[in-house]
Amino acid sequence: MPVPGPLPFEQALRTARAAVEEFLDGNFARFDGQVAEAMAYAVKGGKGLRGFLVIESARVNGVALEGAVAVAAAIECIHAYSLVHDDLPCMDDDDLRRGQPTVHRRWDEATAVLAGDALQALAFELVADSGLPAEATVDLIRNLARASGIEGMVGGQAKDIAAETAETPLTLDEIIDLQAGKTGALITWSASAGAWMAGENPSFLEDYGDALGLAFQIWDDVLDVEGDAALVGKAVGKDADAGKATFVSLLGLDEAKRRAEQLVTEACDALSIYGDDGECLRQAARFVISRQN
Amino acid sequence: MPVPGPLPFEQALRTARAAVEEFLDGNFARFDGQVAEAMAYAVKGGKGLRGFLVIESARVNGVALEGAVAVAAAIECIHAYSLVHDDLPCMDDDDLRRGQPTVHRRWDEATAVLAGDALQALAFELVADSGLPAEATVDLIRNLARASGIEGMVGGQAKDIAAETAETPLTLDEIIDLQAGKTGALITWSASAGAWMAGENPSFLEDYGDALGLAFQIWDDVLDVEGDAALVGKAVGKDADAGKATFVSLLGLDEAKRRAEQLVTEACDALSIYGDDGECLRQAARFVISRQN
Repeated sequence: MPVPGPLPFEQALRTARAAVEEFLDGNFARFDGQVAEAMAYAVKGGKGLRGFLVIESARVNGVALEGAVAVAAAIECIHAYSLVHDDLPCMDDDDLRRGQPTVHRRWDEATAVLAGDALQALAFELVADSGLPAEATVDLIRNLARASGIEGMVGGQAKDIAAETAETPLTLDEIIDLQAGKTGALITWSASAGAWMAGENPSFLEDYGDALGLAFQIWDDVLDVEGDAALVGKAVGKDADAGKATFVSLLGLDEAKRRAEQLVTEACDALSIYGDDGECLRQAARFVISRQN
Repeated sequence: MPVPGPLPFEQALRTARAAVEEFLDGNFARFDGQVAEAMAYAVKGGKGLRGFLVIESARVNGVALEGAVAVAAAIECIHAYSLVHDDLPCMDDDDLRRGQPTVHRRWDEATAVLAGDALQALAFELVADSGLPAEATVDLIRNLARASGIEGMVGGQAKDIAAETAETPLTLDEIIDLQAGKTGALITWSASAGAWMAGENPSFLEDYGDALGLAFQIWDDVLDVEGDAALVGKAVGKDADAGKATFVSLLGLDEAKRRAEQLVTEACDALSIYGDDGECLRQAARFVISRQN
């Protein structure tokens, strides 16, 4: 089946999110019990940006949605698990996520720990079951495991927790390093997943993902200062209240925004080899620094 | 390189454990920080039975230790992560594990959650990096993810937690089902990993693993009643104190031991196609119901 050209971003995001939700609903229907219910709850209601990046990076590499949706669902499971665990009382202690009670508030902490654990396992199962060529599947899994683990997302979260009790606030370089793990690694993986699927060189999409991930995190800090809690869907002003160093506290609001814009330009420039076919990914980059949540 | 014949079990277990420890030490040396330290701490001091099963099932399928050690290390990471999370205050709330303070007692809960999360990711990374053929790698990962997740280990732990607040104690069939997930799935995966590596039929080793896993859990319940806390390395008598249904409370001590012995006979019988080469795995089965910890 021929792979179509790019859709406008908003439409592509909706299409990707609907495909991922339908795919995951089919999976969750196989499972019973409260933890399974909490898993399904945790993956609902997100923007679906990571899953979209997987599906759109697959499309620009000639891989149709049908082949990419399991991999897109996998990254949404990893992302959801990380939020469930980060929200726990022993971590960020959040009551609200995506405008709904967090999993440990809706059920209990044990359910939240187990739902997160099972979502992580499910992510790897979905990639293993994706039906992609075995070599591509192994590449995706190796890179996903690394991006999720101690050298990636978990490592970044560990640095974030450590910073809360540190005597001196983090420097800009330390925050960039922390966020490259905590948020950046999964975004870069998502953006380059399509190249791994197709056995193509992932470096252009990795550059795009690196710039996009950092812009994303700077914008999160902007929203923590300027955002409306009702739109953001979680508490705002927490970082400032906690005296935590953020991109905004270190750079000021205007300079933080300017850096985010510059990174979005870099992200778009990295897509030049894809020509017009990269337009939807370029729009996604611009969306990241215009979003309200 | 020719694959040698079976060693006596105790020697094979020591050899496997040493190979896995050396392999993991090499990996942990790459990582920095408290969470990485907690990961390394959590994988130390176990019996290494699951890693041994991987390595020995590989040997009987013609795969040398060098090819199997990464996969053996992976299952020890999954097992260690499950213990770290199960020990958390919101789950079993244990202070002692393998005779040492549990991770959340030695450090804190956030470190325990993150170390467990990163150990799970590392497990999948190690299998993906094992250098085995891509098809075998994908088979191993698919089955490991399923055995670890909501349909396996996490599902079993969820049922165990739910049973604590249930109005009626579990029936024997319910406990068998619970343990098949909580303990059995990883043991069966370990025992059949060598067949997946070699692209051979895993069904004989799966039958062996299923029987061994159930015998293992029955023996754990026996040790909870008869064991010496100093030898067992964790608190004993907890299940009886909690009024929890166990194999011993439902069957009585003598019948529980008789069932465990019968299962070990079944496990050994399942190995008949391996002839004398299965002797070390048979000894392992007998070890499971003679161990003191």
